[in-house]
Amino acid sequence: MTDQKQHRTEISRLGEFGLIKVLTNRFKNINASTIKAVGDDAAVIDTGNKYTLVTTDLMAEGIHFDLMYCPLKHLGYKSVVVNLSDIYAMNGIPRQVTVSLAISSKFSVEALEELYEGVRLACEQYNVDLVGGDTSSSVKGLFISVTAIGEVDKDKVTYRSTAREGDLLCVSGDLGGAYLGLQLLEREKRIFLENPQVQPDLENQQYLIGRQLKPEARKDIVELLAEKGILPTSMIDVSDGLSSDLLHICTQSNVGCRLYEADIPISQEGNEQALKFNLDPTACALSGGEDYELLFTIKKEDRKKLENEWDFSVIGDIVKNEMGVKLLSKGGKLHDVTAQGWDALRKVSEL
Amino acid sequence: MTDQKQHRTEISRLGEFGLIKVLTNRFKNINASTIKAVGDDAAVIDTGNKYTLVTTDLMAEGIHFDLMYCPLKHLGYKSVVVNLSDIYAMNGIPRQVTVSLAISSKFSVEALEELYEGVRLACEQYNVDLVGGDTSSSVKGLFISVTAIGEVDKDKVTYRSTAREGDLLCVSGDLGGAYLGLQLLEREKRIFLENPQVQPDLENQQYLIGRQLKPEARKDIVELLAEKGILPTSMIDVSDGLSSDLLHICTQSNVGCRLYEADIPISQEGNEQALKFNLDPTACALSGGEDYELLFTIKKEDRKKLENEWDFSVIGDIVKNEMGVKLLSKGGKLHDVTAQGWDALRKVSEL
Repeated sequence: MTDQKQHRTEISRLGEFGLIKVLTNRFKNINASTIKAVGDDAAVIDTGNKYTLVTTDLMAEGIHFDLMYCPLKHLGYKSVVVNLSDIYAMNGIPRQVTVSLAISSKFSVEALEELYEGVRLACEQYNVDLVGGDTSSSVKGLFISVTAIGEVDKDKVTYRSTAREGDLLCVSGDLGGAYLGLQLLEREKRIFLENPQVQPDLENQQYLIGRQLKPEARKDIVELLAEKGILPTSMIDVSDGLSSDLLHICTQSNVGCRLYEADIPISQEGNEQALKFNLDPTACALSGGEDYELLFTIKKEDRKKLENEWDFSVIGDIVKNEMGVKLLSKGGKLHDVTAQGWDALRKVSEL
Repeated sequence: MTDQKQHRTEISRLGEFGLIKVLTNRFKNINASTIKAVGDDAAVIDTGNKYTLVTTDLMAEGIHFDLMYCPLKHLGYKSVVVNLSDIYAMNGIPRQVTVSLAISSKFSVEALEELYEGVRLACEQYNVDLVGGDTSSSVKGLFISVTAIGEVDKDKVTYRSTAREGDLLCVSGDLGGAYLGLQLLEREKRIFLENPQVQPDLENQQYLIGRQLKPEARKDIVELLAEKGILPTSMIDVSDGLSSDLLHICTQSNVGCRLYEADIPISQEGNEQALKFNLDPTACALSGGEDYELLFTIKKEDRKKLENEWDFSVIGDIVKNEMGVKLLSKGGKLHDVTAQGWDALRKVSEL
């Protein structure tokens, strides 16, 4: 037998989802209350009358955010919102969050107050209570680890794994904006680093910048669906990019999909900015990530219930697994959809 | 009015608990299910028939652990156990954990497998399920953020704030060992750095080293108390040191305490090693921290129910608030008990 310690497999070879698989495949769940463990937007725990949902996200300076252009208040807000988004993606209602920080000595109390003001605003906006956390030092960099706790009626929980052939694929809002906002901020940062005298030119793109720095979770969509009496057959939030997140639904549901490029919602601002950057707007929507929209499937017959609703789009059809996950381009060609979404681990190899 | 941004207050001026107070005092809880938010070992959430407990701890490389002498498997184990300890300190039963990592590129997949093997062993040992997490990059250093979820009968939850005059103060196991184990490891690290040829001399102190590198949570004490029909009037786990954690109980319960030095449990190994290091064994117990024993108060009349139990000690009496929190030394003198426990934020100023 070879000594395992002699081997060194780079994490970048596996990617985030491959790594999670390797690390968690030896775990067995033994508590009856554990309904769903790793593999969805949130864990599902049976706490009696309802299910309790738990999700956690860790944001690291230099990987997920850059303090050169990300104000601490926005960062605090976003760190909570991205977790609430995961609770909504289970069709749940978030109720509590914990916020843990690791901070280097460069941060003052006043800086942390700014960050917590953002946390507080998010809590207020989404009716969520801060119930705990941990505050520690970091040798270098700022780390924020947030856990959100929510609840959902047992017959209303929506998983990634339950889309069925014939369902319609829908998405809320528009896609690609957060990525384009990031490109604008990164460009201005580069210019500033080269010449600090140059004033930043964000081209009046408040919408795209806002999508990146202060995303919102789609509480309203979950409420709308409930109000219209629609229970999505599956749901996920678009955090890694439409391609990657759609593939999660399809792989876990064992189905294929026809995604229609012409129907993918892209804002006018996003469209224009993509072209200015010489980027394909559709590629930004597919691979950009961080839009925190909800991607969900509904039964065909539910479509009419949403007829007059403007802030969501039907963008595809769920088909047989054998038909694969494909994009029908505006030009009428079929392309494979591949996961090229944002992978926080990919940056490891770039450092 | 002065511009707040002009001020810079160093975090080290406030300490961890002062900082938490400043950061959280503007938060208001609005959900009826939030029974207890910040300020105890775990948050308490009303989920119907029972309370759900949630606690989270973040461990940072170079602050909480040193990979020069902390094997990754032990680290994974400890990162889970310290959270479970907080659930037990609420008289609860842990059921689930989430584990988030931020990792720099120096870690291989094999190294992370080691870490997760420790996580798995802790889950197995304490009948807990891994239900989620997040895996991300870090520009520098390893960060582990664990959240534990547990449950407790509504009439059995034990807070820090409910000790009453006349109660007896008890602690499980012995104290100071984890700190002395750390001193041994730190000494050998210094020697190694000076001369890598010298073999480490851990003086056969497996017990103390084990207390530091592989602590256990006192599941057995929670079970014992239940079995004997004892509901502690208050409880906390000893993570920051006996002084600091006793002060949490006394301050939050609005009571004083007489702590008897002669009754503070210290292992023979701990006692001997402290003297070798020219340290006062009592000071190690009071300020060392990381022992993860349970510190709790019981009604006087419950003492007889524990008569034949060996692994806990009665170490003090809860008295009127006005009498203060004092240590009666072996020499018969009264000393103020002050919080000098381990404060992860104090290291900020040392970096």
